[in-house]
Amino acid sequence: MYRNHTCGELRQAHINKEVLLSGWVHKLRDKGFVVWVDLRDRYGITQLVFDEERSDISLLEKARKLGREYVIQVKGKVIERASKNPKMPTGDVEVLVSEITILNKALLPPFTIEDQTDGGDDLRMKYRYLDIRRNPVKNNLIFRSKVAMEVRKYLSDQGFIEVETPYLIKSTPEGARDFVVPSRMNEGQFYALPQSPQTFKQLLMVGGLDKYFQIVKCFRDEDLRADRQPEFTQIDCEMAFVEQEDVLNAFEGLVRHLLQNIHNIESGPFPRLTYDEAMQRYGSDKPDIRFGMEFGELNAIARHRDFQVFNSAELVVGIAVPGGAEYSRKEIDALINWVKRPQVGAKGMVYVKCNEDGSFKSSVDKFYTSEDLAKWAEATGAEAGDLICILSGETDATRTQLSALRMELAERLGLRKADEFAPLWVVDFPLLEFDPETERYHAMHHPFTSPKPGQLELLETDPGAVRANAYDLVLNGNEIGGGSIRIHDKDIQATMFRHLGFTPEEARSQFGFLMDAFQYGAPPHGGIAFGLDRLVAILGGQETIRDFIAFPKNNSGRDVMIDAPSPIDEAQLEELNLKLDL
Amino acid sequence: MYRNHTCGELRQAHINKEVLLSGWVHKLRDKGFVVWVDLRDRYGITQLVFDEERSDISLLEKARKLGREYVIQVKGKVIERASKNPKMPTGDVEVLVSEITILNKALLPPFTIEDQTDGGDDLRMKYRYLDIRRNPVKNNLIFRSKVAMEVRKYLSDQGFIEVETPYLIKSTPEGARDFVVPSRMNEGQFYALPQSPQTFKQLLMVGGLDKYFQIVKCFRDEDLRADRQPEFTQIDCEMAFVEQEDVLNAFEGLVRHLLQNIHNIESGPFPRLTYDEAMQRYGSDKPDIRFGMEFGELNAIARHRDFQVFNSAELVVGIAVPGGAEYSRKEIDALINWVKRPQVGAKGMVYVKCNEDGSFKSSVDKFYTSEDLAKWAEATGAEAGDLICILSGETDATRTQLSALRMELAERLGLRKADEFAPLWVVDFPLLEFDPETERYHAMHHPFTSPKPGQLELLETDPGAVRANAYDLVLNGNEIGGGSIRIHDKDIQATMFRHLGFTPEEARSQFGFLMDAFQYGAPPHGGIAFGLDRLVAILGGQETIRDFIAFPKNNSGRDVMIDAPSPIDEAQLEELNLKLDL
Repeated sequence: MYRNHTCGELRQAHINKEVLLSGWVHKLRDKGFVVWVDLRDRYGITQLVFDEERSDISLLEKARKLGREYVIQVKGKVIERASKNPKMPTGDVEVLVSEITILNKALLPPFTIEDQTDGGDDLRMKYRYLDIRRNPVKNNLIFRSKVAMEVRKYLSDQGFIEVETPYLIKSTPEGARDFVVPSRMNEGQFYALPQSPQTFKQLLMVGGLDKYFQIVKCFRDEDLRADRQPEFTQIDCEMAFVEQEDVLNAFEGLVRHLLQNIHNIESGPFPRLTYDEAMQRYGSDKPDIRFGMEFGELNAIARHRDFQVFNSAELVVGIAVPGGAEYSRKEIDALINWVKRPQVGAKGMVYVKCNEDGSFKSSVDKFYTSEDLAKWAEATGAEAGDLICILSGETDATRTQLSALRMELAERLGLRKADEFAPLWVVDFPLLEFDPETERYHAMHHPFTSPKPGQLELLETDPGAVRANAYDLVLNGNEIGGGSIRIHDKDIQATMFRHLGFTPEEARSQFGFLMDAFQYGAPPHGGIAFGLDRLVAILGGQETIRDFIAFPKNNSGRDVMIDAPSPIDEAQLEELNLKLDL
Repeated sequence: MYRNHTCGELRQAHINKEVLLSGWVHKLRDKGFVVWVDLRDRYGITQLVFDEERSDISLLEKARKLGREYVIQVKGKVIERASKNPKMPTGDVEVLVSEITILNKALLPPFTIEDQTDGGDDLRMKYRYLDIRRNPVKNNLIFRSKVAMEVRKYLSDQGFIEVETPYLIKSTPEGARDFVVPSRMNEGQFYALPQSPQTFKQLLMVGGLDKYFQIVKCFRDEDLRADRQPEFTQIDCEMAFVEQEDVLNAFEGLVRHLLQNIHNIESGPFPRLTYDEAMQRYGSDKPDIRFGMEFGELNAIARHRDFQVFNSAELVVGIAVPGGAEYSRKEIDALINWVKRPQVGAKGMVYVKCNEDGSFKSSVDKFYTSEDLAKWAEATGAEAGDLICILSGETDATRTQLSALRMELAERLGLRKADEFAPLWVVDFPLLEFDPETERYHAMHHPFTSPKPGQLELLETDPGAVRANAYDLVLNGNEIGGGSIRIHDKDIQATMFRHLGFTPEEARSQFGFLMDAFQYGAPPHGGIAFGLDRLVAILGGQETIRDFIAFPKNNSGRDVMIDAPSPIDEAQLEELNLKLDL
């Protein structure tokens, strides 16, 4: 037996007990006549003590020579500490060691195993197994496991069945972002790795499984962006005999369960915004509503003067920044420069200071009266002491720019609180979006999404205006889940493929199997998918998902030797009947 | 809203309620003046009734035209049935329909959606989404989900953390059975799909995660056998600071939890057999101990006469078949022919009938006395009325043959009961096995398995005799899990690689990352892995695991179009810098 207690367990009640502990040497303080060792395991740290009076001298000598991160086992008696450490759960006691066994030696770690480490990102990646010993990373992995377990508990209790769908699937033409897998047993043939189990879960609905979920890896062979990985994990769900309302209720329940069981937060009904409302009020389809600063549209009240910038703009829109009237000229100039950065792209910014005395001071004072500015303040909800920031131009671009400014200012003002959670639904997304490059409409969600009832005809006349039975679950400015009610009728699905520019042959070769299945009694169905790591990161109050992944990639997509691609040898290529063509 | 009740829900208490149901038309009986429709969903079947007296005539006409597997929604009133069906949970009531909506039509299914279907295997595979509508298949999927959930609950409650390890991993030379995945982003380079997360979980132990588990897909590019799939699911577990005893206790707890929570069966401590004992007593390292019929070795008591077959044999061994003294000459001849089949491979069989009157009748009466045979009966535990079957020859082969006979006879005698569960541990497996073809020793488990304490030296002198800290969990004659205490010392690991015939360079290139990690303070650790589908099948009293997999392969490894490999087009090959070399 290596231990009968963990290093996070001992308390006053254990005093005088003989215990057996194992763990890593976290820290060693040698005061000559006494040596203290902090022994660490996953569960905590326990202080060991060796001293001249009470310990065998050879033991003291042995302790003195322990290195950082040595793996040791000790036997000893729990005693009360002379100077207690109230910050440590085990801080009331220490273990007076009578026996010590070195289980494994350790080289000096390349960075310190502390909450605040001196290791840079690359080093931490390379020695990921050492980074995981640090509390912040370890706790994130534990937290991720807990969230996944709570998801499963809730969905199982609600009657969802977890079904594993295949990873080695049929490859289809135009599977541009598919990873492919040559099959040794079938010469010249390839499997694909699924980008999502979308068609499988729809087949399970045709199969009558009624409520399905799966926490599942998905694969995309594409450029690595900051929070994208070639493999990522999805909470994938589908229900039969449901309308949008049923799906929203079911998964609002899931997120409510998580907030309740993880943060002990009771949440009321989630607000619902249409896509159009969200764009109008926040300039974003994933608004952060932990704070206000809603958009005020000023078109009607800012176009009656000689200010050509506003008069020629499609949209004039502002937000009120709490306390911003105090900003110095320099600070405001910096804000203007911030919105003019290429990443944001505004041409400029008009501002209005709403002074405490009720007067206004603006960058367009020569065009507008105080009465004009008072109306702007009303439209943006600005109060005395606030600053109104106004952008103008083409509608979509201007909203995106002002949304960026809103988020930046909220961040600076500390309004994006990590321990506050503001979920909402965004619904009624456009079914299609126009791609100016290919001059074609693409499915905004995916080609299986159904249009809103009664809008099928609109597809012929005004495709861009068609709204979909599609919804996103947004949490703190992040899209954590998205889904739709699917098409379950073969003919409507065929119509949809036609509008998306598929020839009947293309539709057949890529999705024929699903369309065949629809002929045998497909129920109405719909679902949702969540990005597990993003959900976990946001629930954990983090901005990056990297630490939640045990073996993450670094920015170049290469990692700690274990999950980087490598050349394979000639013999293997030959066996696979492949040649490289470099 | 599509329904306010499921089709499995309505009871006497619902009589007179207005309800909304949706589901599939399971069956239709048209008696002219009355039409009954069985409406089916995942949860059950509810009888709908339409009749001339109480229903609108147009409604009756509409009902009459419904086809099998049509998806419909009905509104109606729950009424008491005239003739109740006690076999159906909903059999006391029916729904008098007032409105009917056809949600989707259906082609006639190619086989009947009944517990006993008329569909052959290939047809059921091709239309898997229809097969899933049948109770036996659907219930298996639900059962699988339940088992996986119970596994997770137990392990989470015991402090195990589920960590997802990567699927796109570094490919290593000699990864003969690896699927490889060409990377679009890294020309000429390949990922491999993991055959198991073995090295990752060991790294997590080095990382201090202490208790890890994962229900995870594994991949092997090899010939498809009856219960092998190119992708299969493993319950993968690892613990730090453990000896074999700790691991056995932890996972005995898991299986006990499953038996308790799934079958309400309390099980005592699991028996433990060493590999040598198991081979000696049952001729198998995965004995079915739901029944006796243990081997009795007869060498000492069968070699003192002139019977050369026994005198020249390395092993003479028998089993007692309960009630077998009644077998006719013809039945016994059939048994002898059975053991002589090439699949079993015995040269012949000696038998002894233990008659009810205490006398013996054997096929070797001219060589042996009644006193001899009485000793054989004692050694095999045969009682009056039993038949002793005796095989002889080279030890290993003879044991395997007699084990096959034991299992076959138990099957015929109904001793392998589906609702009885007899788990046991087999421990102390040989560390290495000799491959006569390559004339080399191979790791029986894998190269990370540690030898028994004190046996490291034996590696140099008698490698075949070294026993390992390796164990299998056996249930009803199936190995459901296997694991070992790992080597955690870099030098011992290097020694092991050398004994397995790896050059230092090969060891470095394949396992260098793990050996590097061992230098930074690796704790003692060990673990186990279970085949999920086999576990589920055996817990479910099934012999085949096929139905537990939502999208199984058929025998040729090809399936319902969705997970078969296919050719990919030239453009895709070009983009991957690959050429086919057929």
